[in-house]
Amino acid sequence: MSSAFNDWVKTRQARVEETACKNLPKADLFPEPLHEAMRYSVLGGGKRVRPLLVYAVGEMLGAKSSDLDLTALAIECVHSYSLIHDDMPCMDNDMLRHGKPTTHARFGEAMAMLAGDALQPEAFCILSKTELPAERKVLLVEHLAQASSTRGMCGGQAIDLSMVGKKMTLEELRRMHAMKTGALLLCSVLMGAACGKERADEEAILASLKEYGTAIGLAFQIVDDILDVTADTALLGKTAGKDAKEDKPTYVSLLGLESAKEMAKEQYEKACHALEQLPDDLPGKERLREIAYFIVGRNY
Amino acid sequence: MSSAFNDWVKTRQARVEETACKNLPKADLFPEPLHEAMRYSVLGGGKRVRPLLVYAVGEMLGAKSSDLDLTALAIECVHSYSLIHDDMPCMDNDMLRHGKPTTHARFGEAMAMLAGDALQPEAFCILSKTELPAERKVLLVEHLAQASSTRGMCGGQAIDLSMVGKKMTLEELRRMHAMKTGALLLCSVLMGAACGKERADEEAILASLKEYGTAIGLAFQIVDDILDVTADTALLGKTAGKDAKEDKPTYVSLLGLESAKEMAKEQYEKACHALEQLPDDLPGKERLREIAYFIVGRNY
Repeated sequence: MSSAFNDWVKTRQARVEETACKNLPKADLFPEPLHEAMRYSVLGGGKRVRPLLVYAVGEMLGAKSSDLDLTALAIECVHSYSLIHDDMPCMDNDMLRHGKPTTHARFGEAMAMLAGDALQPEAFCILSKTELPAERKVLLVEHLAQASSTRGMCGGQAIDLSMVGKKMTLEELRRMHAMKTGALLLCSVLMGAACGKERADEEAILASLKEYGTAIGLAFQIVDDILDVTADTALLGKTAGKDAKEDKPTYVSLLGLESAKEMAKEQYEKACHALEQLPDDLPGKERLREIAYFIVGRNY
Repeated sequence: MSSAFNDWVKTRQARVEETACKNLPKADLFPEPLHEAMRYSVLGGGKRVRPLLVYAVGEMLGAKSSDLDLTALAIECVHSYSLIHDDMPCMDNDMLRHGKPTTHARFGEAMAMLAGDALQPEAFCILSKTELPAERKVLLVEHLAQASSTRGMCGGQAIDLSMVGKKMTLEELRRMHAMKTGALLLCSVLMGAACGKERADEEAILASLKEYGTAIGLAFQIVDDILDVTADTALLGKTAGKDAKEDKPTYVSLLGLESAKEMAKEQYEKACHALEQLPDDLPGKERLREIAYFIVGRNY
């Protein structure tokens, strides 16, 4: 990772944190426990991969930085809600997330469920604060709602739930993850673009970005599956080795470790190829390549 | 209830049902169990009070009927999700709703939580299908997101959760219910208006509608508290007598049964007064009065 990219990542991560701090309901505001639980889950943790994608694509297309801040935060709210609910006893029943107790472990199940529930509308409230033309705001809402619907994240979760202990083909696994994890990552790319200036409507640009977003979405999940096997709990900040223990189908269980690593690399190359299709005069392509590299090379 | 009003209610309830049937993801669509659970909770039950408000106000202001169908369904999706999650073991732990097993009793806790989670973005997807100008679509999104946020429904739920067994003043109780139940009812009125033609932007009209929506929201909850004491489980379609059993503060526990009934009547009169402030040439005021009467006079 180049030091310029490293600096860029750090400043963008700090902006997500700051925007969240300012725009989420304050912890001393009534009803306090709900707001505390929401802030606990969004603030102070995570790699902020989705926001980084929003920033990188939006900056490439000349978006206003305050619009990107709000859009990045909105997606992170949806991502956070999904983690809160996913960690609950009736789902994955996990006690550790980002190296801290999960939200229900800290605030109780009922408040955790409500905090997750409340982060969804909050994301749409946050989107409505952007200063984009109404048409673009509607586009942001559509992207986010579709990606978190049964065609996206929630659908993927439901498949995951019904597949524990069952055999899956590689194609079924790919489809599940394209929905569960991939949809929101692709959505981050498209929402970054939707914040951009005129060129954000060019079909060819959108098609390449879509190809890029799909490839890194898949790569992200393959690496997640690899890390569940190779990394330890302390570094991951969440319980390692859970997939095998629960007999969940993963890229590693289907392909073996080496082939899974190979497949992650292929997706990285696919993402790079998509970036090469973008017009030569668009700035910031190298940044998107570095994000892809970051996703594939991460060890947590 | 006049027979004309009765017919109007029946046809509008049928339209919600039909719109839901057509616009919710089909039960035979992958992943099936999730879609079945969503349809189970939205279809075939409930008085559809929120949709009735959308229709009545929208028709008053010349809205297109297909826009009202979608808007009414979107609100009903949010209402349904709140019931699914509210009935779960970590919240109210109830097994009966609309005379049927609750969603988690039928589909398991994990699938019920996901069905609730998925109904939220679905509501926003449905709103985006309206054929309104983008500005009005954004307004619909803002109304729905705010009403279901911590300033509205989720906030009220969190207060409810932290108040079991505690003493509340009448003002605290009113505030809790204004958020928990009132916000979405008021929102139904405002979203109905947002579907309307030019006059839907007139400040004076909106102010009267807001007064009306606030009054019926409060009346609705007072009557809910009364019915919990006076009605039986079979008629209610949900477990009666729960508030007292769980030592929840209610209008009845704070004021006594007779004063609570008196207060519901006062809110009905307040709603009627608000309607009188509307311009004389607006049609359909009588319908809104009858809805208020229906809310106060219902026995289930």
